[in-house]
Parts: sequence; C-alpha cells; structure tokens
Amino acid sequence: MQILPDSITNLIEEFSKLPSIGPKSAERLVFHLLSQGDPEQFGKVMIDLKKDLTKCSICRNYSDSELCAVCSSPTRGSELLAVVSNPMDIVAIERTGLYRGKYHILHGVISPIDGIGPDDLEITSLLERVKSENPQEIILATNPNIEGETTSIYISKKLNEQGYGGQLTKLAHGLPIGSDLEYADQLTLSRALDNRQVF
Amino acid sequence: MQILPDSITNLIEEFSKLPSIGPKSAERLVFHLLSQGDPEQFGKVMIDLKKDLTKCSICRNYSDSELCAVCSSPTRGSELLAVVSNPMDIVAIERTGLYRGKYHILHGVISPIDGIGPDDLEITSLLERVKSENPQEIILATNPNIEGETTSIYISKKLNEQGYGGQLTKLAHGLPIGSDLEYADQLTLSRALDNRQVF
Repeated sequence: MQILPDSITNLIEEFSKLPSIGPKSAERLVFHLLSQGDPEQFGKVMIDLKKDLTKCSICRNYSDSELCAVCSSPTRGSELLAVVSNPMDIVAIERTGLYRGKYHILHGVISPIDGIGPDDLEITSLLERVKSENPQEIILATNPNIEGETTSIYISKKLNEQGYGGQLTKLAHGLPIGSDLEYADQLTLSRALDNRQVF
Repeated sequence: MQILPDSITNLIEEFSKLPSIGPKSAERLVFHLLSQGDPEQFGKVMIDLKKDLTKCSICRNYSDSELCAVCSSPTRGSELLAVVSNPMDIVAIERTGLYRGKYHILHGVISPIDGIGPDDLEITSLLERVKSENPQEIILATNPNIEGETTSIYISKKLNEQGYGGQLTKLAHGLPIGSDLEYADQLTLSRALDNRQVF
C-alpha cells in the first residue's frame, strides 16, 4: 500500500538523489517543507538556477554576465593566477581575504576511474589564457589528493611544453591550525616535517 | 565582492533554511545540482508538492484525495486506532508490516515552549472520530519524550472525560534491538527492568 501521496514521494526521490542525503533525511526535509517551508518559492528559485547562468569567458567560473565579478574587477591583477578544480574553492580562498589575483576553474579533476580526462576539463582554455596573459606566477591549487595532484602535474607539463616562463607554485601542506599532532595522519606529518620552517 | 551569481546564492540560501543543512552543505548541494543535477525537474516537483495535496478527512494524514489510502482500504479495520504525531511515524510503523489498524495524525505535539497547545493539533477531530467509530483499542503512539508523553496524557484524559470505554495502550519501552546494555541510558534501562518479561 502506498501510504504517501505521489507529490510527496516524488519530492523525497528528488532529495534522495543529492549527495549525503539518504531516504530518511529526504523524508524529513519534505515534511519540514510541508509544515513550515515555502516549497513554491524554493521551487521557483531552483528552476531559475540555470536560467541566466553562463560561464565567464575568461576564467570559466559560473557568472550571470560575459565576465565574472573577479575578471571584470579593476583591482585584480593578472600577475597572479590560481588554478582551482571547482567554484567552491574560490569561495574558500576569498574567505581568507588574502588573495588579490585571478582564478581559472577547471570544473573537475582528471579521474580515469570516473572517465574524466584532460579534454573534459577547462585545460585548453587555461593554456590559451596563459599564452596571452602571461602571469608571473601560477598557483596550482587543486586538492591535495591523488586526482588533484595528477591534474596539477599534467597541467605543469603542458605549461612547460608551451614554454611558460613564470613561476609554478602549489599550496603549502602541513598540520592544519588547531589540530593535534597526536591525531595527524602519517602523510600530513611527513610533509610537515619535510617542509619545516625556521622558528 | 560577490563571487557567486545571485541565482546560486539564492538557492544556497533556500537550502540553508532546511533543518540539518548548514551553509557549506547547501553550497555543495547547489554545485552538485549545477554540474550533475536537473534543477528544472527538481524545482517543478517542489512547486507541485502542495498542488493537489489535502488532508484526509478522517485521519488528517496528507492525501491527494478526500480519503487517504489507509482510510479508504477495505482491509483495514476500525477496531484498532494508532494516534501518532507526524505522517513520518506512519511510514515507520507501516515498514514493520505488522499493523493492520487505522491511524490518526495529530500534526505535532503539545509544546508550551514553542507556543503549541492542544487546539493547534488534530485532537478535536480525534475525539469526534472516537465517538463515532468507537474503536476497541487506541494506541497512543507519540514519541517517548516529555512533549510526546504530555500529549498522550492529555488525550487519555479527554478520552476518559467523554466516556471512552475501550482500551488505551502505548508502545513498549525498553532496550532497542542490537543495542549494548553497557551504553543504554539510565532511563531506558530502568524501563527495561520495570517491564521485564518472562523468558
């Protein structure tokens, strides 16, 4: 017997498709919307998500105009370029308030197991951009895991092949601030030892 | 500087309003929808959630017709009535496959701290229904916490006042199956001792 009306089970199904939301959480979210939420408003916002959305013609970040806020800003210099996997990484870097350069978004990482190769990413646009903008430094800011590092290595090779003369850097690895040395994993602690700094 | 386009931040905001979804999770969900999801479809389903939805005129469960699936089923008897706080509780009870009676949904519990009194719940409809259907047994199946038990006590008083002659029961309390006695909280273990059964 189907206890719940179709409109409720359909929405539970949609929520269950999202990452880290199981069927029980999906149920709870839908009943929350029913009793206290505004599903009409939420639904409209969701339908409008991609409506005027495009990708910035320079950095490939999501944008609602030809150029995104960073690329069109007069205060951002072209000397420094950070290459990141996803738009969320930009949000994280901007939160530090320390970065004044520009970005390039790959929209993923090289991952043979998921069938994602270099051609599925914004690597060609990056190489072209570097040729014309010729930044002094490129920070390869992919995640410190196998896919992220593979992607950075691939890009560094391609940049060297096309004769990029500036500096290639990556983010520092080590103990996270506020962490316990005792609980640090072996690899992180090895990196922290290797890269130890003068006190 | 606003790094993300409005359509993205608006949807992140809507997701953040949901229980147990913080701003970072909301961000991740929206970027998932952008890269791999179908927000138009999801949005349509969300807008349609309440469209043809009403409450069953007998049990007050959400339904897309005058009577819900349980109340209109010929195989469900009126001798046994389970009173629950929320529609989700019905889903949980139905999963056991053991219950063949009917339900009444209160849509909440008495909670003075949240300003919810008996008149905000489906208690009047329950009392009327019991008068006309006169079930042999009513299971007061609210949650085993202060609000749930207060609600059950209130309903039992009201039922006695109107001269209900059947049996009033509640769900058994004790150790959950698969749990560790060692980790059981004091109250649960006390109940399990009080209600011990012949082996």
